[in-house]
Amino acid sequence: MDMAETEEHGVDAILANGKPRKVGIAGLGLIGGSFAKSYSEAGCTVYGWNRTESTLAAAINERSVSAKLDETNIGECDCILVALYPQVTIDWVTQMAPYIEPGTLVIDCGGVKRVICEPLFELAEQHGFVFMGGHPMAGTQYSGFRYAKFDLYAGEPFVLVPPAIYDPRIIQAAELALAPCGFGTFSVTTPEKHDELIAYTSQLAHVVSSAFIKSPTALKHRGFSAGSYKDLTRVAEMNAAMWTELFLDNADNLTTEIDRVICELERYRDAITDGDSEHLQELLQAGTDAKAKADGRWPDRSRSS
Amino acid sequence: MDMAETEEHGVDAILANGKPRKVGIAGLGLIGGSFAKSYSEAGCTVYGWNRTESTLAAAINERSVSAKLDETNIGECDCILVALYPQVTIDWVTQMAPYIEPGTLVIDCGGVKRVICEPLFELAEQHGFVFMGGHPMAGTQYSGFRYAKFDLYAGEPFVLVPPAIYDPRIIQAAELALAPCGFGTFSVTTPEKHDELIAYTSQLAHVVSSAFIKSPTALKHRGFSAGSYKDLTRVAEMNAAMWTELFLDNADNLTTEIDRVICELERYRDAITDGDSEHLQELLQAGTDAKAKADGRWPDRSRSS
Repeated sequence: MDMAETEEHGVDAILANGKPRKVGIAGLGLIGGSFAKSYSEAGCTVYGWNRTESTLAAAINERSVSAKLDETNIGECDCILVALYPQVTIDWVTQMAPYIEPGTLVIDCGGVKRVICEPLFELAEQHGFVFMGGHPMAGTQYSGFRYAKFDLYAGEPFVLVPPAIYDPRIIQAAELALAPCGFGTFSVTTPEKHDELIAYTSQLAHVVSSAFIKSPTALKHRGFSAGSYKDLTRVAEMNAAMWTELFLDNADNLTTEIDRVICELERYRDAITDGDSEHLQELLQAGTDAKAKADGRWPDRSRSS
Repeated sequence: MDMAETEEHGVDAILANGKPRKVGIAGLGLIGGSFAKSYSEAGCTVYGWNRTESTLAAAINERSVSAKLDETNIGECDCILVALYPQVTIDWVTQMAPYIEPGTLVIDCGGVKRVICEPLFELAEQHGFVFMGGHPMAGTQYSGFRYAKFDLYAGEPFVLVPPAIYDPRIIQAAELALAPCGFGTFSVTTPEKHDELIAYTSQLAHVVSSAFIKSPTALKHRGFSAGSYKDLTRVAEMNAAMWTELFLDNADNLTTEIDRVICELERYRDAITDGDSEHLQELLQAGTDAKAKADGRWPDRSRSS
């Protein structure tokens, strides 16, 4: 090591050293497993925990994880990443709280933030560690440690949900702590805003893809499909138990988005049923323009000529 | 040329020489333009026609097209590909029919087949040329000659819709004629079956993507989105005039598919509103299994553990 390490711990140590010395990771699925691979690749000591012990053994065997994360060594970690289902996240952090050193940065990676952040901000304050909600905007249609990879996060966005009282030091510490994973951008937001946006960008996409694949015509698609079918159905395959919990934890926002897409689909359906060419073209042009706008481009009317 | 060419024309010449000597292409957008590039790259003489003359001039200038396709040279073509909107396809072939030599293979590339094939099978019989419906299962979210590329079709499927009376010679001739484009597979089907499948794999995908992008939340997605948002919205941008015509020409099949996806979305919405965890998980697991089945794989239940 070419840099003298401080005696400080957690947020202070991350700010002083520019990175966490030891990282704890709870949950070694696609998300937690990819974190373990990133940090071990970057030369950090990684302690890992997983409900299914055989996954932990596999991670230790391939040296993505140095040792099991437990009550005896969690106090050594400057940063702890929790990549479990929402309720298990709350339970696990609550159970481990007495063993977490004051000043430790604890970041969860769950797909919803309101239900997780509210109790854990409070718990962290009681125990003197720093809790921050987090959401890596990356993934694949596959789940589990076998699909984890060290570069899953390279260039991708990470959403940070810090406690309400603004402290730039802990945001800086979180960005430094996550730097070994190579995220491309960091956004800072509230639990409410996170859940509102994610209901659309991620959850609705999964619901629509799941609904799309259920047409009996799907079974006959081969030889008659191209990129649009492939794209629409890619995330139809998912971890049903995990997404059920995520959807129910964000029911208000998600049902709003599902209702919106149903309402839009009914407009297209009605215009087609009525043979209303002018209205249908308006609807499609509005979608084309909305896509350009969402991408931050000017609508390109030349393509419709 | 290392192969003596026959004096035959059209289907006979293609079968004898293993490829068409001269190809006519009507419509130089993404689809027709990519055909022009493929055939010129493969050393064929390409005559091209396009409503907007400046596009034809650009294609001739970059040598994707040798000369303008018109009444005076259409008789030289062994094979003619028509990549125009459905109604314009019917009008253009009808207008050119008197100048097309008997035996010439004429293939259209429109996104619907019933409305195109019915009149053109009859017209071809009257004039002695061979008409076949076709649909290259390739494309991008962009349209126009500027996006055309010589390898757009490499490895992709092509759907052939031959006349009702089965003649293996013309299917063989079509496959030989299209070989320079490098298609990966050929499927043979009826106009009815084509339109039923394409309503789902392509048209519904475009409608759903267009509906999806219209949520006001789309404007706030940056920093909060990953692959699933990107996939769901890729084809929201489209040539509104062309897709309006395609959707209305396939209204019966397309409205059936839109109604199916609305009905499925309502099931998810209701399960989420009711907080019915068990039912929601069943719905998501059924979608996961359906995706595996559509892909020709066994459902992988291990991922849900």
